Amino acid sequence: MRLVVIGGVAAGLSAAARARRADPGMHITVLERGGVIAYGACGFPYFAQGQARQWEDLVVYTPDQFARDRKIAVRTNAEAVAIEHPRRVVRLAGGEAVPYEKLVIATGARARRDLPELAADPRVFGLNTLDEARRLRARLDASPPGRAAVIGGGYLGLEAVDVLRARGWRVTLVHGGASFLGRATPWLTDLIRKHLERCRVEVRLHERWKSVPDGFDLAVPALGLRPNVELAAAAGVQLGRTGAIQVTDRMETNLNSVYAAGDCAETLHRVSGRPAWIPLGTTANKTGRVAGANAAGLRERFPGVVGTSIVRICGLGVAVTGLSEEMARREGFEPVSARIEAPDRPKYFRRGLVTVELVADRRTGRLLGAAVAGDTGAATRINVAAAALAAQSTVEEFQHLDLAYAPPFAAVWDPLLIAAQQTIKLLH
Amino acid sequence: MRLVVIGGVAAGLSAAARARRADPGMHITVLERGGVIAYGACGFPYFAQGQARQWEDLVVYTPDQFARDRKIAVRTNAEAVAIEHPRRVVRLAGGEAVPYEKLVIATGARARRDLPELAADPRVFGLNTLDEARRLRARLDASPPGRAAVIGGGYLGLEAVDVLRARGWRVTLVHGGASFLGRATPWLTDLIRKHLERCRVEVRLHERWKSVPDGFDLAVPALGLRPNVELAAAAGVQLGRTGAIQVTDRMETNLNSVYAAGDCAETLHRVSGRPAWIPLGTTANKTGRVAGANAAGLRERFPGVVGTSIVRICGLGVAVTGLSEEMARREGFEPVSARIEAPDRPKYFRRGLVTVELVADRRTGRLLGAAVAGDTGAATRINVAAAALAAQSTVEEFQHLDLAYAPPFAAVWDPLLIAAQQTIKLLH
Repeated sequence: MRLVVIGGVAAGLSAAARARRADPGMHITVLERGGVIAYGACGFPYFAQGQARQWEDLVVYTPDQFARDRKIAVRTNAEAVAIEHPRRVVRLAGGEAVPYEKLVIATGARARRDLPELAADPRVFGLNTLDEARRLRARLDASPPGRAAVIGGGYLGLEAVDVLRARGWRVTLVHGGASFLGRATPWLTDLIRKHLERCRVEVRLHERWKSVPDGFDLAVPALGLRPNVELAAAAGVQLGRTGAIQVTDRMETNLNSVYAAGDCAETLHRVSGRPAWIPLGTTANKTGRVAGANAAGLRERFPGVVGTSIVRICGLGVAVTGLSEEMARREGFEPVSARIEAPDRPKYFRRGLVTVELVADRRTGRLLGAAVAGDTGAATRINVAAAALAAQSTVEEFQHLDLAYAPPFAAVWDPLLIAAQQTIKLLH
Repeated sequence: MRLVVIGGVAAGLSAAARARRADPGMHITVLERGGVIAYGACGFPYFAQGQARQWEDLVVYTPDQFARDRKIAVRTNAEAVAIEHPRRVVRLAGGEAVPYEKLVIATGARARRDLPELAADPRVFGLNTLDEARRLRARLDASPPGRAAVIGGGYLGLEAVDVLRARGWRVTLVHGGASFLGRATPWLTDLIRKHLERCRVEVRLHERWKSVPDGFDLAVPALGLRPNVELAAAAGVQLGRTGAIQVTDRMETNLNSVYAAGDCAETLHRVSGRPAWIPLGTTANKTGRVAGANAAGLRERFPGVVGTSIVRICGLGVAVTGLSEEMARREGFEPVSARIEAPDRPKYFRRGLVTVELVADRRTGRLLGAAVAGDTGAATRINVAAAALAAQSTVEEFQHLDLAYAPPFAAVWDPLLIAAQQTIKLLH
């Protein structure tokens, strides 16, 4: 059996490695357009900052390691330009035809670049590719800190602010919308904005910049992502409502023996019950594994995501999972939400207050979503809510969770449980 | 309606406060044997250490606050010596009879003190009562650090080691059993022992000391707890197999209108499905709330615990939840377990490796338990397993959890998920 994987980063390599474990005899080729594989794109901001000292620190495997340890051929600088599915070949830029019996499409996502003036400005630096991250790092290393603009208030934009502040730059954050992180949750936007202002970041909401004004030495646009689906779509692969590739829970596309995984594909949102496009490295690894297993003849399924994400912003940790109240309403739920602020430890160990919001469905009592903001250690408690969402728990069940307590770690009433108690009051 | 609560700490005050919210007209009296209420006993080690500067930092409420804010009469130095249930009165040490219609027994637990030679030795200091904690703190403040023995390798013993090391004492830990934390898990005992030895603690397992040898300046026995059930038992309250008070999921005892909550009562272990006695402040607060709600005429239930606990030992965080492999076998499961060691972050953010063990049932694939050891931030991920246990998740479901990932917080494959993948391999 001959498996070809298009894309040599998270999803593609997870698929290839999983297929190899499932079928030691399979012939597996990974085609990677770029010169480097297996890099952690989520680390680009931290490499630019200098937290990761060299770009090689972002790289988990080399093609040689894949060839030697897994007998997987990884071809770099091999750009697939067409999938000729009736003939079962992938056409490369040089004209070569790479035959497959099973195909995994893991072409990822790219930054939106629909503002040509930004692209032409030498002060503008991206953070979406390894080359961009290296160029930004070189720029930050080349001069003392100056004045920077970050354009976009999503995850990458806020990470860029974090990195530039850590390097000592004066930062203006410009965001076209009214709220950060793509969540129309006013308190969360307020909390982030106030925190940014305390960290001496100038925040401008409702502003759309098409170019970078004078007075700025550097700008980082982070205007969102688009799935790389053109190759797939041209071959007849069905896209979903989100614009990403439509897949089953086995990561199958509409074409027989063709799978898709990672940032180019949709996933089921387990709370809304509908397909969503939430490009993330963790999901890419998981869906890649499932695609690889199924391509190799196993039967595995990916149950979907609950929409968990986390970001560090100048020492503040912000994490969300599930649906916000506004998203829940749009999905047909009847949401209530309670938000509390509570200490993360007994006062003699206290580092700070944690803000927790829970969203629940009034009709069923089911937990629908959560948001947590606090110091970076505090924010990871979002994972407890993520586990409860996966289990479709009610808030009533959630309030009884047996969470670990000892004074160095936690408060006797965890902020999650206090938030659950407050949410329950709204249900009755 | 007249409610009397015996015990003015976690469970008792939670019950009283919850009853008040449920019924503003109820007449509520709390009888506390000691002079101080609402103290966090879990903080005693950290007060002895000096992390909590004054003992008042451990106290959440005063009787005056309860009287003023909640109209609850809290009587300190009021020792209940008998429950005369046929007449519905609690008899106090001075002879006074306090009438009740509803009664909540929240008499807590006490340290085992079955070694008279230890009790008589002026070098011996307890950590189970506020007075003991104050006496130990005064001792630690009174002289430069010397040589100390801690007798007992449960939670309190390991916390005592932590505190004494933090104060600069040379410490010998003496434990009668073969394993720490009451869990016969050899790798966990090894890991803790090696860590203690790296922290220059002398560890002696399989040794039972009945007295403190010459050469030690101080000793802290921590030989386990016993539920305070004598008062209840004398009144005809049924005890369970564990020796603690048997209760329903509404915290009802066998006596009509008499509830029990906190460290004196059993709780359902949700994994084994059987009553257990796991005295903990968090459970005391939760069961107290449920007892108070039901005593006030509501109908609430406590679903039980999954056996989560956590301890800090000289910078190491160790946390467990659910059943160990050995406990699971004893409960009739067919357990498999996998243990992995994995980085908690990408290498450029790494603080250390986290060890995770998961236990699952071979027949059903159900997750049965987890143990996590790592730095103190890493150990709190036990809560994700606690949530999964409450939901009776399978390991298959667990491996797909949508956990938060960004490089400052986590590795792209969380150690929990890697452990789940390894556990699944053992199921097939």
